[in-house]
Amino acid sequence: MTPADARAADEIRLDFARGERVGVGEAIFCAGKSAGQLAAILDAAAERQARFLLTRLSVEAHAALPDRHRGGLDYDPVSRTAFFGGAPAAGRGGVVAVVAAGTSDAPAAREAERTLRFNGVAPTMIFDVGVAGLWRLLERVEEIAAHRVVIAAAGMDAALPTVLGGLVPGVLIALPTSTGYGVARNGETALAAVLASCAPGIVAVNIDNGYGAAVAALRAVRPLP
Amino acid sequence: MTPADARAADEIRLDFARGERVGVGEAIFCAGKSAGQLAAILDAAAERQARFLLTRLSVEAHAALPDRHRGGLDYDPVSRTAFFGGAPAAGRGGVVAVVAAGTSDAPAAREAERTLRFNGVAPTMIFDVGVAGLWRLLERVEEIAAHRVVIAAAGMDAALPTVLGGLVPGVLIALPTSTGYGVARNGETALAAVLASCAPGIVAVNIDNGYGAAVAALRAVRPLP
Amino acid sequence: MTPADARAADEIRLDFARGERVGVGEAIFCAGKSAGQLAAILDAAAERQARFLLTRLSVEAHAALPDRHRGGLDYDPVSRTAFFGGAPAAGRGGVVAVVAAGTSDAPAAREAERTLRFNGVAPTMIFDVGVAGLWRLLERVEEIAAHRVVIAAAGMDAALPTVLGGLVPGVLIALPTSTGYGVARNGETALAAVLASCAPGIVAVNIDNGYGAAVAALRAVRPLP
Amino acid sequence: MTPADARAADEIRLDFARGERVGVGEAIFCAGKSAGQLAAILDAAAERQARFLLTRLSVEAHAALPDRHRGGLDYDPVSRTAFFGGAPAAGRGGVVAVVAAGTSDAPAAREAERTLRFNGVAPTMIFDVGVAGLWRLLERVEEIAAHRVVIAAAGMDAALPTVLGGLVPGVLIALPTSTGYGVARNGETALAAVLASCAPGIVAVNIDNGYGAAVAALRAVRPLP
Amino acid sequence: MTPADARAADEIRLDFARGERVGVGEAIFCAGKSAGQLAAILDAAAERQARFLLTRLSVEAHAALPDRHRGGLDYDPVSRTAFFGGAPAAGRGGVVAVVAAGTSDAPAAREAERTLRFNGVAPTMIFDVGVAGLWRLLERVEEIAAHRVVIAAAGMDAALPTVLGGLVPGVLIALPTSTGYGVARNGETALAAVLASCAPGIVAVNIDNGYGAAVAALRAVRPLP
Amino acid sequence: MTPADARAADEIRLDFARGERVGVGEAIFCAGKSAGQLAAILDAAAERQARFLLTRLSVEAHAALPDRHRGGLDYDPVSRTAFFGGAPAAGRGGVVAVVAAGTSDAPAAREAERTLRFNGVAPTMIFDVGVAGLWRLLERVEEIAAHRVVIAAAGMDAALPTVLGGLVPGVLIALPTSTGYGVARNGETALAAVLASCAPGIVAVNIDNGYGAAVAALRAVRPLP
Amino acid sequence: MTPADARAADEIRLDFARGERVGVGEAIFCAGKSAGQLAAILDAAAERQARFLLTRLSVEAHAALPDRHRGGLDYDPVSRTAFFGGAPAAGRGGVVAVVAAGTSDAPAAREAERTLRFNGVAPTMIFDVGVAGLWRLLERVEEIAAHRVVIAAAGMDAALPTVLGGLVPGVLIALPTSTGYGVARNGETALAAVLASCAPGIVAVNIDNGYGAAVAALRAVRPLP
Amino acid sequence: MTPADARAADEIRLDFARGERVGVGEAIFCAGKSAGQLAAILDAAAERQARFLLTRLSVEAHAALPDRHRGGLDYDPVSRTAFFGGAPAAGRGGVVAVVAAGTSDAPAAREAERTLRFNGVAPTMIFDVGVAGLWRLLERVEEIAAHRVVIAAAGMDAALPTVLGGLVPGVLIALPTSTGYGVARNGETALAAVLASCAPGIVAVNIDNGYGAAVAALRAVRPLP
Repeated sequence: MTPADARAADEIRLDFARGERVGVGEAIFCAGKSAGQLAAILDAAAERQARFLLTRLSVEAHAALPDRHRGGLDYDPVSRTAFFGGAPAAGRGGVVAVVAAGTSDAPAAREAERTLRFNGVAPTMIFDVGVAGLWRLLERVEEIAAHRVVIAAAGMDAALPTVLGGLVPGVLIALPTSTGYGVARNGETALAAVLASCAPGIVAVNIDNGYGAAVAALRAVRPLP
Repeated sequence: MTPADARAADEIRLDFARGERVGVGEAIFCAGKSAGQLAAILDAAAERQARFLLTRLSVEAHAALPDRHRGGLDYDPVSRTAFFGGAPAAGRGGVVAVVAAGTSDAPAAREAERTLRFNGVAPTMIFDVGVAGLWRLLERVEEIAAHRVVIAAAGMDAALPTVLGGLVPGVLIALPTSTGYGVARNGETALAAVLASCAPGIVAVNIDNGYGAAVAALRAVRPLP
Repeated sequence: MTPADARAADEIRLDFARGERVGVGEAIFCAGKSAGQLAAILDAAAERQARFLLTRLSVEAHAALPDRHRGGLDYDPVSRTAFFGGAPAAGRGGVVAVVAAGTSDAPAAREAERTLRFNGVAPTMIFDVGVAGLWRLLERVEEIAAHRVVIAAAGMDAALPTVLGGLVPGVLIALPTSTGYGVARNGETALAAVLASCAPGIVAVNIDNGYGAAVAALRAVRPLP
Repeated sequence: MTPADARAADEIRLDFARGERVGVGEAIFCAGKSAGQLAAILDAAAERQARFLLTRLSVEAHAALPDRHRGGLDYDPVSRTAFFGGAPAAGRGGVVAVVAAGTSDAPAAREAERTLRFNGVAPTMIFDVGVAGLWRLLERVEEIAAHRVVIAAAGMDAALPTVLGGLVPGVLIALPTSTGYGVARNGETALAAVLASCAPGIVAVNIDNGYGAAVAALRAVRPLP
Repeated sequence: MTPADARAADEIRLDFARGERVGVGEAIFCAGKSAGQLAAILDAAAERQARFLLTRLSVEAHAALPDRHRGGLDYDPVSRTAFFGGAPAAGRGGVVAVVAAGTSDAPAAREAERTLRFNGVAPTMIFDVGVAGLWRLLERVEEIAAHRVVIAAAGMDAALPTVLGGLVPGVLIALPTSTGYGVARNGETALAAVLASCAPGIVAVNIDNGYGAAVAALRAVRPLP
Repeated sequence: MTPADARAADEIRLDFARGERVGVGEAIFCAGKSAGQLAAILDAAAERQARFLLTRLSVEAHAALPDRHRGGLDYDPVSRTAFFGGAPAAGRGGVVAVVAAGTSDAPAAREAERTLRFNGVAPTMIFDVGVAGLWRLLERVEEIAAHRVVIAAAGMDAALPTVLGGLVPGVLIALPTSTGYGVARNGETALAAVLASCAPGIVAVNIDNGYGAAVAALRAVRPLP
Repeated sequence: MTPADARAADEIRLDFARGERVGVGEAIFCAGKSAGQLAAILDAAAERQARFLLTRLSVEAHAALPDRHRGGLDYDPVSRTAFFGGAPAAGRGGVVAVVAAGTSDAPAAREAERTLRFNGVAPTMIFDVGVAGLWRLLERVEEIAAHRVVIAAAGMDAALPTVLGGLVPGVLIALPTSTGYGVARNGETALAAVLASCAPGIVAVNIDNGYGAAVAALRAVRPLP
Repeated sequence: MTPADARAADEIRLDFARGERVGVGEAIFCAGKSAGQLAAILDAAAERQARFLLTRLSVEAHAALPDRHRGGLDYDPVSRTAFFGGAPAAGRGGVVAVVAAGTSDAPAAREAERTLRFNGVAPTMIFDVGVAGLWRLLERVEEIAAHRVVIAAAGMDAALPTVLGGLVPGVLIALPTSTGYGVARNGETALAAVLASCAPGIVAVNIDNGYGAAVAALRAVRPLP
C-alpha cells in the first residue's frame, strides 16, 4: 500500500457506518470522490462481502470505475445510483408512493425509488401529475391517498405538494428539485414554497435529496426495532 | 407660507402627475409621508378640485389628518385606501375578477378592488378559494374563467396562481402577499413561486402591490386612446 | 350586520375548512387577524358548536377578545394556543416525543405539544437536552428512541436533530426555531442545517412551525381512513 | 421497447398537455432533457401528427437530434426555439410589440417573437432603444404606444420598462434578462427593479422567460373562448 | 466625573477626528448614541469651540438633548442634521446639483444638501424629476448638465441615474434610497440597479447615505491641498 | 408551585450547565426570557449559592427583576451584563487586549471585557483606533502586539482586524458588530469582510458576540486541565 | 446579406452610440457576443473609420476573430481590452492614479488603465500596496494623494479603499474585484465593505468594472463641454 | 524581459511579503494565477533561495509548471499544496489536532495539516468522526481534548464543532467546508451553523480555508516574539 493509499484509507472509514444504527442499509455518497477513492471503497466492501447502495454516481464516474467493480454493479444512469452486492428482492408494495410533477423531476424521484427498493420497499411510481394539468392529478388522487407515505417530487414553484396536502391523509414528504431557471434558484424556491405551504403537515428534505426522502419514508413504515 | 412649508411644496409636485399619461386616475402613495405633508397635498388638490386615490394610508395616518380633509374622504381601513373628491360611480362589471386564497390576503385584494372601482371597473370579488381546499376552488373555476383579467392574490407558497394558470384563458396577474412567517420571507417566496410557475403566461407584480395589479388590469381592459 | 361585517364574513370562510380532509381537527391561524375578525370567527364557531384550535394567538390578542369568548378558551401563553369548545381528553401516550434543545425553544415545542393533545395524542416532553451538554442527551436516548415519531426543536445551529438522526430509528421531524441572533438569521441557519444534515432521513418543517410538526406526526401515527 | 425506453415514456407524458387548456399551442421545454428523451418525444409527436414549439433547445442539443427529426424542424439558434410540424402562417400584426434595450437581450426577445409567431401573432420587433441612448427611444415611442401589448426586454438595471411605463397605455410586460455581471446577479437585479418600479401597472415574468412573456401577451389579445 | 462618564469619554474620542485629513469639516454620526453620550460630545466640542455637523439626529434624539445644547443647534428635521457652532455662510453655487426622483427621497437629498452647505457649497436642488414623468425631467436636463457634479437620489428601481447617465457629462453620484416596499428591499434593489446600469461612469454610495454623497462631491470640486 | 411554574422549571435546566465542561464560569443568555423566567433562574441559583454571569440583560429586563435579585446584581447597562454572586477579584492583566474601532462598538467590546473579568482576566481596553484615523492606531500597535490574544471589535466594513492582522503576532479574534446601516446589513458585511480578509490567521465569532470572543480568548490563555 | 445577418445587424445598432453624449470614446462590451456578431460590428466600424475600445474580449474571442480584424487590434490579454483604429497618443499624466491591492486585482486595474489611455489620460499605476503589508502602502501615500482621482482596486475584504479614504483628499473610486473564495462571494463582500466604509466620501462601481471606474474618473478630470 | 514580463513582475511583488510580520513562513495563493505568473514567482524565489508554501495549486496548474520548478516541489494533490525549497523537518507534536467529520473534508483538513507542517508543527490527524456516528467520536474525545488547539473540519450542517465545543477545553477553530449540495450552499450553511453555535467560544475561518485555520493555530501555540 502506498502512502497515498494509506492516507485515503484513513479518510474513508466513516462512510461504511452510515445509516446502520437507524436500520437502513449502507449507502455511499459518491459525489466529490475520485475514481481511485471509489475503487478503494469497493475493494474494502468486496472483502467484507458487504451489500450497499451508491448514490450520486455520475455516468462519468461509473465509466471510470475498474472493470472488476463496474461489472458487479446494477447501475441506473437516471437516478445515478448503483446496487453493490446484488439486486434487492421484490419489495413490499402499497405502502409508499412516489409522485413526480414533471419529467425533469425524474432523477430525484428515481433516486428515491431505488433507495426504497434497496431497502425492501416497492414504491408505486406516478409521473406526469403536475398541477398545471390538474385533471390528470385528480384522476389519481384516490390511488395516491391509499398509501401510508407519499413522496411528492416537484421543482419550480412546487405547487404539487400543497395540492396533495389537502387531499391525502398519510405522511407527505415534499422532495423539492432543482428543475427550472431564473428565480427557481436551483430549487431554493421550490423548497421555500413547500415549507411555507398552508396545507398542514407537509415535511421536506433537501433539494434533489431523493435518498433522504426515501429513508424518511422507511422510518415511517418499518416496525421499530 | 413658512420656509418649511415652501420646501415641502417643492418636494411634492411629482405625485400629482402620476399615472396620468397612461390613462389611470391620479394616485398618492401615502406611506412615509407625514400628516403635514399629506395635508399639504390635500390642500393643493382641493384647490384644483382634483379627484384622486390615496393608497397605503394607515389608520393612524388617516386619524391624524385635519378634520377638513378627513371628513371628505371615503376611507377603507382594510385596504388602507381613500377616495378624495367623491366616491366613483358604479363601474363596468364582468371583466376583472379578484381572487384571494385566504383572509390574510384581504388587504392586497381590497387595494386592487378599490383601485379598480376608482377607475370605473367593478371587479368580481372571490375569497376563500385556497388550493388547500381544492374543491371549493373548482366549484367556481368556470365563473372565474369568464373574465378577461383575473387577479390572484396569495401568500405563503402562492399555489393558487399556478392552479388557475392551467384553468383560465384570460390575463392572469399574480399578486403575491406578505402573508406567512419563516421561509415565507415576507412575500419573497410567494413572488418567486409565481414567477417560477410552470403554468404558462402568469405575470406578477410586487409583493402586496394591489394598486399595481389593478392598474395592469386596467391596461388590459380599457380601449387604447 | 354592517357592510364591514359582511365583507369580513366574506373573507373568513376559508379557515373553517382547514385540515378537515386530512383528518386533523380544525385550526385557526390568528396572527394578522384583528380582534374584530377573531370575534366574528368565534361567533360563527359557537353557533356551529364547533371545536377547534387557535394558534399564534398572542397574549395581547387574547386579552382583546370579548369576555364571552375569552372565558371559554383554554389558553396557554407560552405556545400562544387556545382550545375552543373544551379541553381534549387524555390522549394516546408513548408514540410521539417532543425534544427541545433549550428553554428558548419552548414556544415552538409547546405549540407542537398542544396541537398533539388537541388531536388525541399525549406526547412525551423532554427539555434541556442540547448538544452542548451531550451527556444529558445521551442519558435519555434510549427513552427517546422508543417513540414512533420524534419532534426535535432546536435553533441557532440546530445540531440536536443531526445527533438524534444517528440514534433513533423512527420518524424524525426537525422543528427549527428562530432562537439566536446575528447569523442565526431568525431560524434560517437552523433550517438549512437540518436539511443539509448528513444524518439520513431527517425531515423538516418551517421555522417555529410547531403546529405543522405536530400534524406531520399525526399523519404518521394515525390509522389511514 | 427496452425497459429504459418504457421508463422514459412514463416520465414524459406531461409535456404534451402543456398549455392546451388556456388556448396556446403545445410547447416542450428542452433544457435538461437528453437527446434520447427529445427523440422519444418527437417520435410520439410525429405519430400523432402534432404541431408544437420547442424552447430552450441549445445548438448542441439540436445538433444531437437524429436526422429524421432535425430535418423537419425550423430551428433558430439565437432564440433556441424550433417549430415542429411546419412553420406558422403569417400572423396578426400591430397588436404586440417586442422592444429590447440592447443586443444582449436578443435571445429572450427572439424567444418571445417565435412563441408569438407560432401562435399566430406577428409582433413588431424594435431593438436598440436602451435608456442610455434616450433620444432613439423617444423617436419611436408613438409607434410603440400604439400596440395593445408591449413586451420590454432588458437586463442590468432594466430602466427601459420604467421609462415606457410612463409613456405607453397598453399592457406592459417586463421581460428581465440575465445580461450583465457582478451585481446584475444573473438577472435578479433587473427583475427586482421592474417589480419595484414606480411606473404604474408594469407586470413581470421570470428572468429570460421570453416564452412566458409571449403567452401572457396572447392571453391579452386573443378573444376569450 | 463618574466612572460611567469616564468610560463614555474613553469611547467617544474617535468621532472628533473624522474627516479632518481629507479636508471636510467634522461630523458626528448620532444614530445609536444615547442622549447622555451626545451631551458629552457636545460639552467637549463647546469647550474646544469646535464647529461641526451632526447627522442622523432623529427628532426624538434632538428633543432629548439638554437645553444648553439644543438652543445652539441649527436643526433640520427632514434631513435629521444639525449645525453646531453656527450656520455656515452662503456657499459656492453652480458646481453641485442634487436631483431627487420623488418626495420620499427628500431625507437623503436634504442630508446631502446640508452637508454641502456646511462645507461651503450651495447646491442646486431639483425635486420632482422622476423617470415616470419623463418630460419634466427632460425640461431641466440642460440646467442639470451644467454642473461639475450631479447627485441623483432615487429609490425603488432607481432609473433616474441611468437616464441622467446618458445626458450629463460631469461626475454623476447615485444616491440610492430606501424608498419602497417588497422587492425594493429597503434600498438594496436601487443600489444594485445603479451599479449594474449600462450608462457609463455612474458611481454609488451606500443606501440613504446623503452625507457620503456630499463628501464625494466635495472631493471632486475642491482644490487639492 | 403552580403548574406554570413547574413547566418553566422543566424548561430552564439546561442553562446552568452551560460552559462548565470547558472551564469557564456559568453564563445565562437572557434575551427572550421573561422577567418571570429570569426570577426563577435566579431563585434556583441563590439556593445553590451559585455564581454566574448574565448576558443580554436589557435595561428593561433588569428593571423588571424583583428587588431581591436586582439589589445583588452588579449590572452594566452598556454591555447588558450582570455578575450574580459577587464581583470578580482583580484579574490577570497583560494577556488579552480588546480593541474597538469606534464608540458604536462599545456594547460588544464591553460584553467581552465583562466576560473576561468574570473569569479572572483583566483585559487592556483600547477604544478609538479605527482605520479611518490610521495614525492613532499605529501609535498603539506595539502595545497591542504584546498581548497573547487580541479581540478586535469593528462594524461597517471592519477593516480594523485586517490592518491588525499584518501587525500583531498573537491570536487575533475578530468581533464583527452590527454598527452601520444599508449594506452594513446588521453586521453581515463586517463578518464576511473579516472572514475574507487576506491577512493570515484571523478568526471570527458571530455578530455582536462579545461573550463568545471572550470565551475563545480564555481557551487560548488558560492552562489546559 | 443573409436573413440571419440582417437580423444581427438590427440587434447591434445600440452599442455604437454608447458613451458619446457624455464625452467618452465609443466602447463595445464583448462578453456574450459571438464571433460573428463581433465581426459584423468591426466591419461596420471599419466602414465608418470609427475608433473605439473593446472590453471583456476574452482570449478565446480574440483568437476567433477574422484575420482582417485581429491584425488591426491592439489587444491586451490581462485586461481583455483592445483598441480598434489605432493606439492612443501619450496621455495626460499626474491626474489619475490606479492602485491595486494584489496581483489578482490586475485584470480590473488594467481595464481601468486601458480605458483611461484610450481617452487621453495616462494613469499612475501602483500595484502591491495591500493593507496586510501596511508599511509598503504608507511609503507611497504622499505620491498617491497628489492625484485628483484615485481608483482603488481590491477584492476579498477590500480594506484598501477604507485606509486610503482617511489619507487622500481627491475623488476616491473603489473598484471591488471578484478575487477570493467562500464568503468573498465573487466580489459581493468587497463591494458591500467599501460602501459601508466609515471613511467619508468613498464611491463605488460594480464588481470588476474597471471600465466604469475609468469613465467616472474621466468625468471628474475633463473640462465640461 | 518583455514588456508583458515587466508588467507581470510589477504586479506580483506583494505575495512574497505575506505573513512575514506575524511570524509564519511565506505562502503563495496560486488560484487565479497563470502558469506564466507562477513560473515568474518561482524564478524570483529560486534566485532569493527562498523557502515557501504554495496553496490552491491545482493538479492542472502543477502539471503546467516548467520542469525546472515542478521537480523541486513537494506536491500533494489532495490538499493542493506544495513545499518549495525543501520539505520541512519533523515538527512539534501534541499541540494541534485536526479533526475531520468525513472524507469529503479531506482537502481542507490536509491543507491545514500541510501548512502546520511547513511551519514546524506536526498535527494529530483524526478522520472519520462525524456526529452521525457519535460513538466513534466519543471514543476519541479524551485524546482530542489533550491538545492546546483543535481544528474541526466539517461541511453540510457542521455539527461536529458544536459537539466538540462542549467537550474540549482548548482553542477550537471551526473549519467549515463546501461539502454538500442544495441548502448546504457551498459551505455557507456550515459557516453560519458554527458561528451560531451555542457551544461557547468556537471561532471560525472562511469556507475551505485550511491555510487560515492553521495560521490561527500557529498564533496560539508559538511563543510571542
